[in-house]
Amino acid sequence: MNQINPPPRLLMGPGPSTADPRVLRAMSAQLVGQYDPAMTDLMNETMELYREVFSTRNEQTFLVDGTSRAGIEAALVSLLEPGDRMLVPVLGRFGHLLVEIAERCGAEVHTITVPWGEVFRPEQVEEAVLAVRPKLLAVVQGDTSTTMCQPLADLGEICRRHDVLLYCDATASLGGNPYPADAWGIDVTTAGLQKCLGGPSGSAPITLSPRAVAVIEARRHVEAGIRDAGDQPRGRRIQSNYFDLAMVMDYWGPRRLNHHTEATTMLYGARECARLLVAEGIDNAVERHRLHGAAMLAGVQGLGLGVFGDLAHKMNNVVAVEIPDGVDGEGLRAALLADFGIEIGTSFGPLHGRVWRIGTMGYNARRDAVLTTLAALEQVLRACGAAVTAGGGVGAAREVYAG
Amino acid sequence: MNQINPPPRLLMGPGPSTADPRVLRAMSAQLVGQYDPAMTDLMNETMELYREVFSTRNEQTFLVDGTSRAGIEAALVSLLEPGDRMLVPVLGRFGHLLVEIAERCGAEVHTITVPWGEVFRPEQVEEAVLAVRPKLLAVVQGDTSTTMCQPLADLGEICRRHDVLLYCDATASLGGNPYPADAWGIDVTTAGLQKCLGGPSGSAPITLSPRAVAVIEARRHVEAGIRDAGDQPRGRRIQSNYFDLAMVMDYWGPRRLNHHTEATTMLYGARECARLLVAEGIDNAVERHRLHGAAMLAGVQGLGLGVFGDLAHKMNNVVAVEIPDGVDGEGLRAALLADFGIEIGTSFGPLHGRVWRIGTMGYNARRDAVLTTLAALEQVLRACGAAVTAGGGVGAAREVYAG
Repeated sequence: MNQINPPPRLLMGPGPSTADPRVLRAMSAQLVGQYDPAMTDLMNETMELYREVFSTRNEQTFLVDGTSRAGIEAALVSLLEPGDRMLVPVLGRFGHLLVEIAERCGAEVHTITVPWGEVFRPEQVEEAVLAVRPKLLAVVQGDTSTTMCQPLADLGEICRRHDVLLYCDATASLGGNPYPADAWGIDVTTAGLQKCLGGPSGSAPITLSPRAVAVIEARRHVEAGIRDAGDQPRGRRIQSNYFDLAMVMDYWGPRRLNHHTEATTMLYGARECARLLVAEGIDNAVERHRLHGAAMLAGVQGLGLGVFGDLAHKMNNVVAVEIPDGVDGEGLRAALLADFGIEIGTSFGPLHGRVWRIGTMGYNARRDAVLTTLAALEQVLRACGAAVTAGGGVGAAREVYAG
Repeated sequence: MNQINPPPRLLMGPGPSTADPRVLRAMSAQLVGQYDPAMTDLMNETMELYREVFSTRNEQTFLVDGTSRAGIEAALVSLLEPGDRMLVPVLGRFGHLLVEIAERCGAEVHTITVPWGEVFRPEQVEEAVLAVRPKLLAVVQGDTSTTMCQPLADLGEICRRHDVLLYCDATASLGGNPYPADAWGIDVTTAGLQKCLGGPSGSAPITLSPRAVAVIEARRHVEAGIRDAGDQPRGRRIQSNYFDLAMVMDYWGPRRLNHHTEATTMLYGARECARLLVAEGIDNAVERHRLHGAAMLAGVQGLGLGVFGDLAHKMNNVVAVEIPDGVDGEGLRAALLADFGIEIGTSFGPLHGRVWRIGTMGYNARRDAVLTTLAALEQVLRACGAAVTAGGGVGAAREVYAG
């Protein structure tokens, strides 16, 4: 077999997105040892950078070594004990994933739902909190399955008032949409690199509020062989070793208690993702995603295509585009990939076969990526027999850029 | 903060070891989409390459997205149900880790032990199998905490005879010591990249025999949102979503059912680690580790240092070197790192403060790495006041190389 040589792709789906070349270069740096002072400095710097990315002062801000789903499971399995109640307002596929993971933790999971393409009003959530009295409210900020961005500004206050912990999966939204974790009173957030952060999947940034940390510390069981006399077990042991955040915190903290061997190359990548975002300024990055997302939206509409969902609550970084009647959605995607090297996304569940999902995120929240995608989309739509407005996509996007 | 720029290190501890630069270059390749034909081809190639690395024909040979500990937990949580009995012959710290992880899966765990620095005879294991009647026998092949390599050739046959599944953690040994999984009748093996495979931590290769697959498939619960009518839930649901190997197999298999988003860059690295090993030839790689391990052993003895453990059962790729009386073990390690950029390992548990652990593995199973380490070690030992044989380390190693 040959050396790796992947074909050039412009990844304009709902993620993973094309990685920033600077992130890949950072990941080509040689390894250092697990407890090398250079390594522990890099770990501390990564914590500091992600505090800025999440707009938080939470001491416990670090990486879980796995994909974004690993971050979700680490949060839920560390917070939830068998029998605990959790409430999930489900706005799309990734809400169902929270349910699925929490059920496996033994939690009693309750849900409320809205039709795909809508979000919840704070009153709906509060009403359900009162009815269910959960230990944890778990919500997805940006669910790429529907492209919706759930407003969170009021949920933290509701949770504090009713003594509920608030967890948010910000995998798809972080960096491309506002996410002031502390200002919104969010206790635990997890994310990934492969959406608006411009890196590859495989590392899950997480941040935990002091009250979430207290819940987890109350279940602290340091593993045999590394515990000392002060490490008396407390509470019910977390049902995963790998995702035991009490131990992961001891590894990232000043005691540096051995747990896993930190995935050094992924850490290099995660640090660079955050460093670039902080250097740009989080607000500037969000504005960049807003601008290029608006250009893509105007562009697909300018081609004469419909879009799905409540546009007032669309994430900045992805749009669901209705597949015109008579067009083979998968055939068009294949043609776009084969002839232009551009990937756009298919869709799940009730939207399967009805929409494509087109992303503008991370490194690809760029003018040339948007205009190239619209130009190519026009060509393949025409080749597939769809009625399109010649030049309408690129023209409408240019108007957005012209202000 | 600045771009990443780690200091140059020669990692001669028990792992992580210095990565092969070719692996890091492979990891700098740009991403492709999750279901891009180029990506699914790379996944299939990775499966094929790891079949060769594990010397197995197991169809189910793939990667778990996390560190080697993630691979262990995925295997144990997918195989073990609450109340199942597991037997662990504990030969060092990583045997205790298997116990710890299995307990969190709800298993009833039994252990047998040998003093650190020894291994088990097959009769000892069989006697315990008969006494415990476990569902699963779980063993570490190479436990870096003691440097011992447990003989496995007879265990598969014992397990078949008593209808027991056999799991082995080969993280530290694979690629540097013989590991014919099928010939030895091992049902499940997990590993990592950061020891003899020459890559970074963060991806866990795994292989599962058909009878292990059958046990896991009997617990198949496809998650809501992606299951179809044929996916009726079976048996007791695995208590982790991320580590549910039935779902991970569906993702790597022809159905390509969505689970996590594969950690593309780690996959590139894992594929390159295996590609290089297969190109070298597994037997040649093991012989290389044997040679350089023998040179390092002779070298430290040539310096006048004692070594720990039963040398007849030492792993090829690591040696435990007794800290001479009067020498500050941690001070010497710090001096070696500061003055020569060379890292050697400290140790755990009963060996803490008694030995250093010196590795010769993966990319660093090389003559220049061995000789440079021995030359530098001589200098720092002398500076720390130890009696050393001038030139004795490099000289003895050279004799091994001269054959």
